[in-house]
Amino acid sequence: MNRAEFDLWAQRETDAVESALQAWVPAAAPAGLGVAMRYGVLDGGKRVRPLLVLAAAQAVDGLREAALRAACAVELIHAYSLIHDDMPCMDNDVLRRGKPTVHVQFGEAQAMLAGDAMQALAFEVLTPQQDADVPAALQARLCSLLARSAGHAGMAGGQAIDLASIGKPLDEHALRDMHHRKTGALLQASVLMGAACGEVSAAQWAALTEYGDAIGLAFQVVDDILDVTQASETLGKTAGKDIDNNKPTYVTVLGLDAARRHAQALRVTAQAALVRSGLPHAGWLSLLADKVVDRDS
Amino acid sequence: MNRAEFDLWAQRETDAVESALQAWVPAAAPAGLGVAMRYGVLDGGKRVRPLLVLAAAQAVDGLREAALRAACAVELIHAYSLIHDDMPCMDNDVLRRGKPTVHVQFGEAQAMLAGDAMQALAFEVLTPQQDADVPAALQARLCSLLARSAGHAGMAGGQAIDLASIGKPLDEHALRDMHHRKTGALLQASVLMGAACGEVSAAQWAALTEYGDAIGLAFQVVDDILDVTQASETLGKTAGKDIDNNKPTYVTVLGLDAARRHAQALRVTAQAALVRSGLPHAGWLSLLADKVVDRDS
Repeated sequence: MNRAEFDLWAQRETDAVESALQAWVPAAAPAGLGVAMRYGVLDGGKRVRPLLVLAAAQAVDGLREAALRAACAVELIHAYSLIHDDMPCMDNDVLRRGKPTVHVQFGEAQAMLAGDAMQALAFEVLTPQQDADVPAALQARLCSLLARSAGHAGMAGGQAIDLASIGKPLDEHALRDMHHRKTGALLQASVLMGAACGEVSAAQWAALTEYGDAIGLAFQVVDDILDVTQASETLGKTAGKDIDNNKPTYVTVLGLDAARRHAQALRVTAQAALVRSGLPHAGWLSLLADKVVDRDS
Repeated sequence: MNRAEFDLWAQRETDAVESALQAWVPAAAPAGLGVAMRYGVLDGGKRVRPLLVLAAAQAVDGLREAALRAACAVELIHAYSLIHDDMPCMDNDVLRRGKPTVHVQFGEAQAMLAGDAMQALAFEVLTPQQDADVPAALQARLCSLLARSAGHAGMAGGQAIDLASIGKPLDEHALRDMHHRKTGALLQASVLMGAACGEVSAAQWAALTEYGDAIGLAFQVVDDILDVTQASETLGKTAGKDIDNNKPTYVTVLGLDAARRHAQALRVTAQAALVRSGLPHAGWLSLLADKVVDRDS
């Protein structure tokens, strides 16, 4: 598998996720709620998490319908977290994915409700009661993985630490703990939800857990690097805002060069874990690890 | 079963729910998040939804462990919705369950995160992967019912209509649609989640659906009545705020006397549905319907 094949695969899968989200995020939800939800999740974003789900599912020859639902569910959780994170009481940001943020476009109340409804929708998508394509035990397993990565021990917990750390010095350990939760938990869950769609041994599960942990952290290290090295128009969101908000980042804690070396080391860790998994079809996961580290936006 | 037995049962079950929430809502969640979550859900509220879950589970001889988890999950969803609903961008309320609201106590950002984490926690509680007491198929079914009642088609959708209707005249049909979603969906889901913990026929399911629909609406009609007839200290929340916020209510649309007659008619509908269900142990559900209509706070 080479990079060109990967790009083709990624485009095809991104299109599949987009179509599924188009179908599942309801335009008809009342009083403009559906419009705000669709604005917040459709037609934007790199879709890193859905691609991780689908690449992991492919690595374990997992059920396609389940994996596609899991891919959309993690993206809905990610998108809702961005909507809430951008609100005035949190990061107060006005630009996201190259567009005005949801609360700028629709007002704060609608933005909060849209985020709330998107979290619920993620669990709806995972539990298609009328659909025999996803076994009930897998539905429950996917809900369990997603809820634990999104909640107090994962993403929401990490955001609480983030909030409390503004203007405070954090050492690398504390910074790692914050990002392990805030960004890492959902990225890792994406890998594991994809893996849950097929059969894996305990050793393979452990290897994929380590892969997910490494790329989860790498993603945040690279985010912190891009925040200081790229312009807003490249990122599609406000650049330099962590510095402006006086937030500790890998760049402020380690310095730019050490942060770059750290990202490369995490890539090596992720690739080694994939090799150790012995999964024969882990090619897309391997190329995704490269993509996470090499991206420029 | 008489009223005194009911009160004993309700107290015992409320205590069981409180103990379970004490165990499941994590004090140790980072950066004060757990403290805010516990403040928002422990030691307060009438626990109407958990009691509906547990009464319905008893009516169908359902699995106790599953029903207790479902009871806590619906209360977590209800409590998170109150936290978000009270925020300045929504109802901007400062008093809830006789205490300062969560954003007054902990700040807006923490309140939003606490609500977000509580929604995720509801689905964690429903999916105890290490626990053999709740079959996986039931875990999936409970997640499905809860997600659909909390999301765009249910509670969040109803809140969006509520938001859009401020200062606008609504006819009874539109008001009913709003409340059917905003309050009714989660109350009805409480009944159905309890019922899902046991075996019910399609006819019994339909009867319980109608019961849940009637008491869901009755609950809101009575809420609207109490909003104009009771003082804040009795309600534990700000009285008269719907009028102050220029929101349409059953009292403003129907008038106080007609609203009272409507609540009584809904009680009759609920009781008739229970009789039609033929369930031999529906006594607590019957007394809960009375309680919902007769309550004074």
